[in-house]
Amino acid sequence: MGNETGTGTRDLLIETARDLFLLQGYGATGVAEIVRVAGVRPGSLYYFFPTKEDLLIAVLEWYRDNIYEGLLQPVYERIDDPLERVFGILDGYRQMLLLTAYDQGCPIGNLALEVTNSHPRVRELLKENFVQWTDEVARNLTLAAGRLPAEIDIPGLSEYILSVMEGAIMLARTYRTIDPYDNAIAHLRDYVDRMVEDGTNWAKPSRFRHASDGEKTL
Amino acid sequence: MGNETGTGTRDLLIETARDLFLLQGYGATGVAEIVRVAGVRPGSLYYFFPTKEDLLIAVLEWYRDNIYEGLLQPVYERIDDPLERVFGILDGYRQMLLLTAYDQGCPIGNLALEVTNSHPRVRELLKENFVQWTDEVARNLTLAAGRLPAEIDIPGLSEYILSVMEGAIMLARTYRTIDPYDNAIAHLRDYVDRMVEDGTNWAKPSRFRHASDGEKTL
Repeated sequence: MGNETGTGTRDLLIETARDLFLLQGYGATGVAEIVRVAGVRPGSLYYFFPTKEDLLIAVLEWYRDNIYEGLLQPVYERIDDPLERVFGILDGYRQMLLLTAYDQGCPIGNLALEVTNSHPRVRELLKENFVQWTDEVARNLTLAAGRLPAEIDIPGLSEYILSVMEGAIMLARTYRTIDPYDNAIAHLRDYVDRMVEDGTNWAKPSRFRHASDGEKTL
Repeated sequence: MGNETGTGTRDLLIETARDLFLLQGYGATGVAEIVRVAGVRPGSLYYFFPTKEDLLIAVLEWYRDNIYEGLLQPVYERIDDPLERVFGILDGYRQMLLLTAYDQGCPIGNLALEVTNSHPRVRELLKENFVQWTDEVARNLTLAAGRLPAEIDIPGLSEYILSVMEGAIMLARTYRTIDPYDNAIAHLRDYVDRMVEDGTNWAKPSRFRHASDGEKTL
């Protein structure tokens, strides 16, 4: 194996597996195909990843460790408003659907339904990825909390947004049109708008009440 | 093959494949396993279904043709209100998650993400199943339309409800807890409540305006 046992080969195998799992699914992607597409010797794969499941775990760790560069940074660079950042993240998945002609939506969602019954360690990592995503959405919603009704459960709303997004991707990929995705986000926007409207009404008295705590009264 | 070429054997193969696809996924279920579990000779399978994809198509046709008995009837027998019937349908999936300890959610959703890229005819049947579901929800929402704001897009709202349901099942199955499902349905209920509240306000003048058309003024 010699020079195929370095970090470069390991990274190449992870990226190759990541792309093939995304395009074909985990079950339909064979170890032989990963080796062939990566252009490495079979021994190099087994050196780093004794089983296909070990490779899947490495792919899920890759997604978890690259959420900022892969998903958040491109959105945060052009949008400042925290509520709009949430819709910017959702728009990122829309672009992915369009760019790949509905072959790819959310890599974590794909794997979730395919492998969730069989691999407990994999399921833990799927959950870590989902929770990282909802925590980031919750962080943005907390920054925008002044515009939402006081009683809103922000972690619950964040998880709801993930549900809507994953279900909408499923329909868009099945129908091979962006319409179900746009429809779902439009309804989510309508829901948030209705809450913001409520929040505005609710916030008025509390803003005056708490003005002495240093809150802005605008 | 003799007596294994009758309708009984065909139905047995479809039901066996249906249950194995649901539990393990399509890719992970082999033809040999289907034959073994069904207890028929391999020739009987090939007689009815030359390829595994032919069997998948028959399974999807089975779901499409059995939506009333399998999903709607148990709900409609105990709930009359059309809006509550929609939430009753959603509660059916909740029961399925609990009964199967999160191994099974929505059979169509599972297959949608796994096979949507590879089989166009299968994708058509997945879509037929989804559209049949949203049409039924839309039929109920139309019956309840007097309580919703006049400008609501009922087919769009029905498709949104399907997105929420499918995404929520994905999270509940991954987390192995009912919480994400309950959370999503609670937010959906909150959204519908906000619309109903709006509908009530909107409806007041129109009810008086159209009182001569025979509408109730209560």
